[in-house]
Amino acid sequence: MGGDQAPEMIIQGVDIALERSPDLKIILVGDKALILSLLKTTKRLKKHLPEIIHTKKAIADEDKPSVALRQGQGSSMRLAIDLVGNDKADCVVSAGNTGALMALSKKVLRLMPGIDRPAIAGFFPTKRGESVMLDLGANIACDAKNLVQFSIMGQIFVRTVLGLKRPVVGILNVGIEGQKGNTCVREAAATLQRMTNMPFEFYGFVEGDDIPAGTVDVVVTDGFSGNIALKTAEGTSELISQFLRDAFHNSLLSKIGYLLARSAVGQLRQRIDPRRYNGAMVLGLNGIAVKSHGSTDALGFANAIGVAADMKRYRFLEKVREELTNNGLDLPAEQSKVVATA
Amino acid sequence: MGGDQAPEMIIQGVDIALERSPDLKIILVGDKALILSLLKTTKRLKKHLPEIIHTKKAIADEDKPSVALRQGQGSSMRLAIDLVGNDKADCVVSAGNTGALMALSKKVLRLMPGIDRPAIAGFFPTKRGESVMLDLGANIACDAKNLVQFSIMGQIFVRTVLGLKRPVVGILNVGIEGQKGNTCVREAAATLQRMTNMPFEFYGFVEGDDIPAGTVDVVVTDGFSGNIALKTAEGTSELISQFLRDAFHNSLLSKIGYLLARSAVGQLRQRIDPRRYNGAMVLGLNGIAVKSHGSTDALGFANAIGVAADMKRYRFLEKVREELTNNGLDLPAEQSKVVATA
Repeated sequence: MGGDQAPEMIIQGVDIALERSPDLKIILVGDKALILSLLKTTKRLKKHLPEIIHTKKAIADEDKPSVALRQGQGSSMRLAIDLVGNDKADCVVSAGNTGALMALSKKVLRLMPGIDRPAIAGFFPTKRGESVMLDLGANIACDAKNLVQFSIMGQIFVRTVLGLKRPVVGILNVGIEGQKGNTCVREAAATLQRMTNMPFEFYGFVEGDDIPAGTVDVVVTDGFSGNIALKTAEGTSELISQFLRDAFHNSLLSKIGYLLARSAVGQLRQRIDPRRYNGAMVLGLNGIAVKSHGSTDALGFANAIGVAADMKRYRFLEKVREELTNNGLDLPAEQSKVVATA
Repeated sequence: MGGDQAPEMIIQGVDIALERSPDLKIILVGDKALILSLLKTTKRLKKHLPEIIHTKKAIADEDKPSVALRQGQGSSMRLAIDLVGNDKADCVVSAGNTGALMALSKKVLRLMPGIDRPAIAGFFPTKRGESVMLDLGANIACDAKNLVQFSIMGQIFVRTVLGLKRPVVGILNVGIEGQKGNTCVREAAATLQRMTNMPFEFYGFVEGDDIPAGTVDVVVTDGFSGNIALKTAEGTSELISQFLRDAFHNSLLSKIGYLLARSAVGQLRQRIDPRRYNGAMVLGLNGIAVKSHGSTDALGFANAIGVAADMKRYRFLEKVREELTNNGLDLPAEQSKVVATA
């Protein structure tokens, strides 16, 4: 049970998630005595105790992925992923070490046939609603084939989980003209342009300002640029919020104005609240793994649980497998692994 | 004379720049008859007509850099850069085609000894004031040596132009830990860490949210990530401004609140106004070239002129040459070229 405010935040997050979706079944993995003492503090969970799998071992935030792989056996993160690998659970949700979650998920759940690399996908607020960007940091370097696979997975995600009929996919670049960028983005764009009769539209290249503008539903990029774009957007949003606070505290008149417009400012805050967009999905594995921001609170963690549950509810894994097979991107069947469908 | 609202915007921008710094000498390059007719509309320029170099030829926004190189002779952009190359002017400022400006400046002004690639640097608003980021798009791919050179140029820029005593430099990455990122950023960081007795402090790696946080004074990155970070920040700022407008128009109470807090909101707008940060500096050449945003207005263009004038005033080129020589990064002297010092 990772995260800056864990384990309290996790328990409260589970409580909110169960309030929203009472049919969810939750298994908590961690220190049983500690979890039990926390469960007693909430009304809902005290009555209907979730299953607890006990371990005192945990992967530290500073542990390298290689250390997690070698020494992670018996840790709460490894046990939780194993539950998905053994069909005892449909999804794993963690606010712990991102690198360790990626490495262990990849090892236990393995890559889906037709996918060479997993990608981390996340939601972004936009002028038009929300869009999804991937990869947000799983792969520092990507080739054109990776970007094409991310595009396929991303459009299936927004079709199944967000319910879009015919999503628009764009590749992040430094300009929209065809000759811009590196070989990787140009080759990926050429491949996507050649794909016809697909259930999505390939828009072409998009630039950084197209992400918040909502020009496309799915923004595809490598993990280096994606991570930088995500964090730059978060930081800019935080900067402007501070400037806004400063401005409203500047004079008596603006303080009064703030009091009157408080609900408007609250509405703005809600629209850019990072907790709303919490829950980054690890796509490309034979199982559902969702990474919560380590610094989120209970509400954010409940949202991450909600995203994981939606991926299961809307049969994301099965849809990806179907479309990869139909598009001839599939690998031999013996490399595949049965997906949890409980 | 490029830019979306050119040539009117250019003339008005020059007018503002001269109001701020009456000692500036301006040479306008473009269609003389058109320029003269516009000059007559402003009080200041009508009295003290700036020098005009006539040409009707212009590089189009959609022209590729290779086309500008081959066919750019006699165009307004080429003539303006030639003025700097021939010591007839100290700086060139353009709101036209970025790729063409980069290619022509590099060809005419040539790279400074010790620098392998020019970089585009720009200002960013931060919680602590402003910082400078480079490269913003001149180089899609960079090696470690390029990033080290960008660091040297960036810290000299903020020391000379912003007057910082001992600036802090960081390399943009996907995490702050030493093992994060690709070989390029790790090698550059290792080189910078080995450099001792330098007039700046090397902070190490920074992440996207450190840019608006103002964690460092100079953010160093390759042109792909830098361009994406810049445009993502611009787009996010634009998104939040729209959300704020929406929120204030939502109810009568918030409309009244807005009226009272109008100056506060205006203050916020001013702090994130892209015109304030207009003017991207091409660093690494034997001359000063500043790129204005094509979509800016007169105020933004005046700021770009101001940046160019400051680089001259604070002897940026001479300082870079001195420090590159002192740090043993210099190339043989015969490759150098006399810098305009008029």
